[in-house]
Amino acid sequence: MSLIKSWVETANTPDTDFPLNNLPYGAFLSEEGEAHCGVAIGDMILDVTALEEAGILQIEDEDEVFFFGDWTDFMALGPKVWAAFRTEVTALLADGNEDAEGLVPFMVPQVGTQMLMPFAVSEYTDFYASKHHATNVGTMFRGPENALPPNWLSMPIGYNGRASSVVVSGTPVRRPWGQLKGPNDDLPRFAPCARFDLELEMGAIVGQPSDGPVTVQKADEMIFGYVLLNDWSARDIQAWEYQPLGPFQSKATATTISPWIVPKAALEPFRTTTPDRERPLLDYLKEPAPMLYDIELEVGLAPEGKAETVISRTNYAAMYYSSAQQLAHHTTSGCPMRVGDLLGSGTISGPEKHQRGALLELSWGGKEPVTLDTGETRTFLEDGDTLTLRGAAKGDGFRVGFGECTGQVLPALDDPFGGAK
Amino acid sequence: MSLIKSWVETANTPDTDFPLNNLPYGAFLSEEGEAHCGVAIGDMILDVTALEEAGILQIEDEDEVFFFGDWTDFMALGPKVWAAFRTEVTALLADGNEDAEGLVPFMVPQVGTQMLMPFAVSEYTDFYASKHHATNVGTMFRGPENALPPNWLSMPIGYNGRASSVVVSGTPVRRPWGQLKGPNDDLPRFAPCARFDLELEMGAIVGQPSDGPVTVQKADEMIFGYVLLNDWSARDIQAWEYQPLGPFQSKATATTISPWIVPKAALEPFRTTTPDRERPLLDYLKEPAPMLYDIELEVGLAPEGKAETVISRTNYAAMYYSSAQQLAHHTTSGCPMRVGDLLGSGTISGPEKHQRGALLELSWGGKEPVTLDTGETRTFLEDGDTLTLRGAAKGDGFRVGFGECTGQVLPALDDPFGGAK
Repeated sequence: MSLIKSWVETANTPDTDFPLNNLPYGAFLSEEGEAHCGVAIGDMILDVTALEEAGILQIEDEDEVFFFGDWTDFMALGPKVWAAFRTEVTALLADGNEDAEGLVPFMVPQVGTQMLMPFAVSEYTDFYASKHHATNVGTMFRGPENALPPNWLSMPIGYNGRASSVVVSGTPVRRPWGQLKGPNDDLPRFAPCARFDLELEMGAIVGQPSDGPVTVQKADEMIFGYVLLNDWSARDIQAWEYQPLGPFQSKATATTISPWIVPKAALEPFRTTTPDRERPLLDYLKEPAPMLYDIELEVGLAPEGKAETVISRTNYAAMYYSSAQQLAHHTTSGCPMRVGDLLGSGTISGPEKHQRGALLELSWGGKEPVTLDTGETRTFLEDGDTLTLRGAAKGDGFRVGFGECTGQVLPALDDPFGGAK
Repeated sequence: MSLIKSWVETANTPDTDFPLNNLPYGAFLSEEGEAHCGVAIGDMILDVTALEEAGILQIEDEDEVFFFGDWTDFMALGPKVWAAFRTEVTALLADGNEDAEGLVPFMVPQVGTQMLMPFAVSEYTDFYASKHHATNVGTMFRGPENALPPNWLSMPIGYNGRASSVVVSGTPVRRPWGQLKGPNDDLPRFAPCARFDLELEMGAIVGQPSDGPVTVQKADEMIFGYVLLNDWSARDIQAWEYQPLGPFQSKATATTISPWIVPKAALEPFRTTTPDRERPLLDYLKEPAPMLYDIELEVGLAPEGKAETVISRTNYAAMYYSSAQQLAHHTTSGCPMRVGDLLGSGTISGPEKHQRGALLELSWGGKEPVTLDTGETRTFLEDGDTLTLRGAAKGDGFRVGFGECTGQVLPALDDPFGGAK
């Protein structure tokens, strides 16, 4: 697969996340202070809301699909509309478009533009689909003999997260308070989290509803696109609370997503198969075609006012279950899925130490501090640290990326109830 | 506390759930086929949407608060508006109202009227706050020595459920398929649930948002009202899936709520304290006043076409944690709460066998079948069974009830993917 040229010159460079091959969906604050839908191209944003308003772009017979500056209504229109829209935007932005000049007034520079949540998160589910991550965490939490739970090789383990806590890249994240108990403490205390962590994940966005169990094939068709996702995690809160009903407040402070949703269509050339099964899957989980993606990922950590160190490099292809498998499993009970549901892949860790997607694993529960390029060390996140996830599928001379998924850690509130409204 | 008389005669009988002291909120299908908001009084419904349309009832300067036949917008207006509305409706329906005749055209009989979801569920969280239930289930799932998890006496354990699966009373519930593994099986299979169960719970509805940790007092003020709640549970799916991240598909088929939300104000006379603490609570969980309620509860089971047997009688006052404590705990991490969040109390079981709120406990994991009045026995639910929860706080000559929370079990689909859309 090679680069498709655009008349937007910055889209034709090998290091942009946003060539014409990509055309991801985002939302931004317009000059007039309104939420607008946009498509990224090179270092610019094509203002789709303004294009619709001007009558240059129309979705079938629909009015005001982009009026609210949110892609939820567009998603609900389904895969045929998604494809038609992509074809139309590709034509508008392709090299050789004779009407290119007329589009210039609808181009907004990415630099200096504030990005907004690109869709309304209906519900958020987080999975646990990297065997390396599950083995590492299981070893630390339950010992090596109970590392991988008995069900892990048979089903994509998941739990419901908190949709209200999902934020867009750039939103600062406040270190939470919570109930904690150290291994040597008799009783828990209420204190600021001392083991605040990231989780490097991909997020799949459900673009079509279901009202009964769906096959993996159908699940794949329901997925609208993918984002980078950082599931901020309070490890000390998690260790004390998670038995027997799973993580709760440890995962409810914030989950950050990248500002750009990369359409499934842009990732088609990068499909890859899940690894060999160590235990045969039940039929309902079998994939009729490759449903993972070859997406290179990295995590940067920058202490306040200092340079960033890349602390992890891995690949989404390392996962044991695909998002399509996760979504199919999610529907088995008849659980209704809705437009805007967000599925976190689970932390993406590879087999090597530098491929681990969380500080919990990188520092092995805090025992092996990570040394940054500045000479500082980290076991868990410190106040002022900025975390940045990046990811891209790599073609021949181009990359399909997500933009940066970033957030800075703010110190815990002095009095957590002082700000209660 | 004694009965306040209404000019609606059926509201003055001791056995109605809906005296003037109650005035619960519901939604129903109007004669014109529209969703309307209503308030129950005796055997009638006061059509609040029609009253607003006619200009007889107005919420401050707001227009069309009830236009969509859903209480969500009303909830968002906050406790002062809730109180003013209650005062106004009480005056309209009180014995001696000289304009009573003018209200008769706005009264709809409950019999034959279809009830609808009274609010949009934002997110759904289920707790685990009965010590008797937690001990019973823990004993069956993990053995008597690990029955009560170490954290249980220190925090209200909860997990996020699936808002999309919440349905109103009367909605049939389809027996789910799922991944199951018997204790003697080497490998799991994909099959219809064979251990389908109910959970008798109360649900608290969050009527005001938060954007940081809140105290128990503030949490209590944020609660709009209470419903009966049946958290249908697939025990065989649950046993295989719930470690390590908690229940997922086993709880995602359906959760049924009563058609009527009883306002917190109607329950005020029935406040009662949580039981003595067996371990001191951390300050953030301490209740400044009684925040549980004395609500008598029962579960009826009727095999298809046969008479009902009451299989459980218990009381909400048996819970170890109140909904206000649960909500306060829910916000500790900074988790944003939103208007329309629903918090399930957890299964309400008392200390006696007949007070257990789930068949799992009543039949002790299927080993001690429950005998019905028809002579049949049940370990878990069978196709065609209708479950009905009832509940009421009892005053002097009156009761404040929720209406019936009911649902019939439909057989599993022959081909679960045949109905996939």
